[in-house]
Amino acid sequence: MVVAVTDPDGQAASAAARRFGGASVEPDASACMDRNDIDAVVLAATPQVHAEVAARACAKGLHIFVEKPPTVSRLELSQLVAEAEKKGLVTCVGHNLRHAAVALEMRAAIEGNVAPGVGWAERLGKPIAMEMRYYASKPRGDRWGLNSPLRSFLLSHANHAIDFMVFQMGPVSRVNAALASGGSQGVALAAQLVFASGAVGTLMATSLAPHFSIAGSVVTDAGRVINMESLHRLTVFGVGEDPKRWGREWTTKSLLTGYDAAGYRTELANFAQAIQRGSAEGCHPSFRDELSVYDAIDAIEDLIRDVP
Amino acid sequence: MVVAVTDPDGQAASAAARRFGGASVEPDASACMDRNDIDAVVLAATPQVHAEVAARACAKGLHIFVEKPPTVSRLELSQLVAEAEKKGLVTCVGHNLRHAAVALEMRAAIEGNVAPGVGWAERLGKPIAMEMRYYASKPRGDRWGLNSPLRSFLLSHANHAIDFMVFQMGPVSRVNAALASGGSQGVALAAQLVFASGAVGTLMATSLAPHFSIAGSVVTDAGRVINMESLHRLTVFGVGEDPKRWGREWTTKSLLTGYDAAGYRTELANFAQAIQRGSAEGCHPSFRDELSVYDAIDAIEDLIRDVP
Amino acid sequence: MVVAVTDPDGQAASAAARRFGGASVEPDASACMDRNDIDAVVLAATPQVHAEVAARACAKGLHIFVEKPPTVSRLELSQLVAEAEKKGLVTCVGHNLRHAAVALEMRAAIEGNVAPGVGWAERLGKPIAMEMRYYASKPRGDRWGLNSPLRSFLLSHANHAIDFMVFQMGPVSRVNAALASGGSQGVALAAQLVFASGAVGTLMATSLAPHFSIAGSVVTDAGRVINMESLHRLTVFGVGEDPKRWGREWTTKSLLTGYDAAGYRTELANFAQAIQRGSAEGCHPSFRDELSVYDAIDAIEDLIRDVP
Amino acid sequence: MVVAVTDPDGQAASAAARRFGGASVEPDASACMDRNDIDAVVLAATPQVHAEVAARACAKGLHIFVEKPPTVSRLELSQLVAEAEKKGLVTCVGHNLRHAAVALEMRAAIEGNVAPGVGWAERLGKPIAMEMRYYASKPRGDRWGLNSPLRSFLLSHANHAIDFMVFQMGPVSRVNAALASGGSQGVALAAQLVFASGAVGTLMATSLAPHFSIAGSVVTDAGRVINMESLHRLTVFGVGEDPKRWGREWTTKSLLTGYDAAGYRTELANFAQAIQRGSAEGCHPSFRDELSVYDAIDAIEDLIRDVP
Repeated sequence: MVVAVTDPDGQAASAAARRFGGASVEPDASACMDRNDIDAVVLAATPQVHAEVAARACAKGLHIFVEKPPTVSRLELSQLVAEAEKKGLVTCVGHNLRHAAVALEMRAAIEGNVAPGVGWAERLGKPIAMEMRYYASKPRGDRWGLNSPLRSFLLSHANHAIDFMVFQMGPVSRVNAALASGGSQGVALAAQLVFASGAVGTLMATSLAPHFSIAGSVVTDAGRVINMESLHRLTVFGVGEDPKRWGREWTTKSLLTGYDAAGYRTELANFAQAIQRGSAEGCHPSFRDELSVYDAIDAIEDLIRDVP
Repeated sequence: MVVAVTDPDGQAASAAARRFGGASVEPDASACMDRNDIDAVVLAATPQVHAEVAARACAKGLHIFVEKPPTVSRLELSQLVAEAEKKGLVTCVGHNLRHAAVALEMRAAIEGNVAPGVGWAERLGKPIAMEMRYYASKPRGDRWGLNSPLRSFLLSHANHAIDFMVFQMGPVSRVNAALASGGSQGVALAAQLVFASGAVGTLMATSLAPHFSIAGSVVTDAGRVINMESLHRLTVFGVGEDPKRWGREWTTKSLLTGYDAAGYRTELANFAQAIQRGSAEGCHPSFRDELSVYDAIDAIEDLIRDVP
Repeated sequence: MVVAVTDPDGQAASAAARRFGGASVEPDASACMDRNDIDAVVLAATPQVHAEVAARACAKGLHIFVEKPPTVSRLELSQLVAEAEKKGLVTCVGHNLRHAAVALEMRAAIEGNVAPGVGWAERLGKPIAMEMRYYASKPRGDRWGLNSPLRSFLLSHANHAIDFMVFQMGPVSRVNAALASGGSQGVALAAQLVFASGAVGTLMATSLAPHFSIAGSVVTDAGRVINMESLHRLTVFGVGEDPKRWGREWTTKSLLTGYDAAGYRTELANFAQAIQRGSAEGCHPSFRDELSVYDAIDAIEDLIRDVP
Repeated sequence: MVVAVTDPDGQAASAAARRFGGASVEPDASACMDRNDIDAVVLAATPQVHAEVAARACAKGLHIFVEKPPTVSRLELSQLVAEAEKKGLVTCVGHNLRHAAVALEMRAAIEGNVAPGVGWAERLGKPIAMEMRYYASKPRGDRWGLNSPLRSFLLSHANHAIDFMVFQMGPVSRVNAALASGGSQGVALAAQLVFASGAVGTLMATSLAPHFSIAGSVVTDAGRVINMESLHRLTVFGVGEDPKRWGREWTTKSLLTGYDAAGYRTELANFAQAIQRGSAEGCHPSFRDELSVYDAIDAIEDLIRDVP
């Protein structure tokens, strides 16, 4: 239950409070957190505000859900991790795309335990490669006063893409990357990754697309391909008795709400349930999980800086 | 006109001769090339045979079309280049995919001169990134006695993918790469490239897919995306007055023969016309063009060998 | 603003009231309508309840939005039309699919005035044919105590399909044939229609699909085809300077909420604005518009009854 | 083996003869059929020439393959049927689309015996409905001197569509309605059919599309949908343990030649094998099979003539 909302824009705060029937409007985040009837905070602001408010929420022992990016730097995030773990708090970063219906189905397929749904007795094999395409239409130029179009892109989009890959394949252990800067202050980023599992990957991420889309595919050592198209369609080829040409296909519901399709509802529901159950299980990625995303984007930034 | 055919398998030679009504069957390539009524040779054998026969064809002043891969090593190819250029011969490597209808249309779109067809007055901008997915179902293990599943894959498939990227984006100037070896002796190769133009790229190429498919997309600095799906469909997003959601789409003819759709007929027709006209223009890639493909696959091989 | 809600299920009523922050829960529809702080009612129940409550809302001079189907029979609907028009009320039937983003874009394309978006100077020509596929997974068997699986299907799904066709092509003037067969108490309905404009149409509608999908295409006398796929993608072929193979394509936003994508939000927003503006314009279909849907489904039912 | 070719255009005849290495060029069809080294004729001309030459081939006891349409009228065809059956000849009409890879796979799926390929133990149920979209870009206006744009369309395209439906669903027993309107001398035909099995169908066929495409779907009484897209992709939904959202998908080979993909090679190979085996089995549709296509197109024509 939403108890209180705050927003520097008072009208936005009031509108939100009305949507959550009965929520109070508080003048600022401190006032919200000073109330003694709250268990957790949900933050959606700038990374600077996220870091500051999350630190104070930690201090007060409040569970924390924060929209990506939680902080500007890995250092700030690691301090939050230490603090939150000391207090035993549930933490979660809002990488909604990993909770999208298609992402969950893809993960289940990769794990090979799509049962009881699909009923393939066989397993798909070990995933050995993943390619990903993450095409956004922003940001063009700087964001959040970072004074770096590259860092702006890494913190607003590339991290989302990396998180998606990590969710499907596990942590990234090594990165090679190159950047092309485009017109209109947009960027195109080409990266080649190695996962801790030994699997390899490629990522093409850009802020120069006309509209948002996300797609990717996974290859397994048993000769199967799992292909995902834009939060919409999943195809698994190489299964069954005629794997050469017949595959399996999954599609989202035409009438599924975008909030479900894009994972927004699921991630918040998971967070709420984790708090109620008193266990972080099922609520992810935690602040700690998010560290590996910062490792990857920091590595990308370093490589690009080093390019002559 | 096909004058003579040869094949170690005599029955295959006879069958081919019948299909080319009136062609002679010769006992071997030497006998073919000793005839005084031929201008050119078309070779489709192993890279070792290609290299040997192409060298002798050069010596006899015959124009040469050779299926990929023309040679096992870059060194052999560079010798053929020198020899053929000294004699002024037309040379061509059989990278049919760059002559596929969809590839030609993609190239035209990237060049921004799709006129008179599409009639977009506007240009698409400068291409700054390309990602490519090349999913084959073979080879699994060694080929052509190369004693290297990796070199086998590089010479039978990765070169095809690289050539496709080079055709669309120009030569590759730098490569980062990583390999995952899969079960059944197949491989998955993740590479990150930089083109001479400064554009960046990613390539995911595997021999572990259940069936062959090829796809890719290009991003431009003007915020357009050109997307190609499996020799079949091309979509250009970011054009027109409502570029956010409306794009342009091209599809191959349903009844187009595969020989045309996959570029086999076009590449041979271009080669024949080049000889008749006495100019190599329009016939590509030449042996010299192919050197840059060997540069890229050799770089990939070196990087992968170097991986601890 | 939602003032009051009612539902025979008290818990559902309370839950809804909470979602609309501050709405009262009333014991029944009469109590709701007895309040003097309401302007309009929104009904989502059975057609029998719709008809009864709508009649009382008319009597009280309240504007009415009703989920489809508004009534069991055309006769009841025509009485509501007469009553509501006498009082000058805004009426609307909840055919959300015609308000789906893809449906609105399709309508704009057919009208040929997609400007300023797409900017095709040319017009698409007069639509002369439309085929539609409406594949639902229910109802299987009887619904709403109608004692007729066919009428149940006509009132819960076929009317939705007919409304979509009417929205794109104008009223239906004749249903030439319709036949149904089924299994598992589901039906498959094949119909051939003529529109008042002279255009022709086919409809395949079924309740036997595994999941819901809707698709259709329109042919114009100028040789263009407008193709719509499942609330998702629109393609227009036959435009531009190379109309043979290049077309235009539109896709919904990946992150568009289902409520918008499926038209639910738009239809209610239009209804609210019509009341505020004091003009029914932009709010459709009205109860009168809906009469033509009943004409079509009644004709289908008669034809099916008449089949030996 | 092709022994002789003829064509009123001598150059075309010579070119064809060269392609079939060693074939003779004969001055006319009579000369071809007077040779004593031929078993069968393959005709691709106008329906008037087909009828005349086929009659003479029958008289000489030659097996006959004829491109659609074999004749202008059903009457002529029925005479050929009688004659050919008396002589025990193998006859075949060139409806290549039923031999397309996707059509054969669709038929196998409908028959429920896709084994050993797909391995679904379960059957798909009885097909109860089929809708079909047949979009061609010609003919515009009259063809073959028929003095009827409608008959021209029925004989050049609608018969192809009907044959495809008959191949999947069995003979048509009734055409309930058909209407056409058009522009640019093209037509759009909307028809509703009943199959002998009791299944129902719709057909939208037009000559006003910018390019050729064919698509259709079948619904079964067990709640499955088999969807076919343009000689390319087949999807079966409603199978497996999670039939709601997971289905099975089949795609043609990217490199499949159009001659195979579109069925041209298969139909001729079947004809040749039937002659060699001395049994018509596997070679279809025969002239007799084709009678039901004429029944359907004649019914369509009559219904359209009868429309006020």
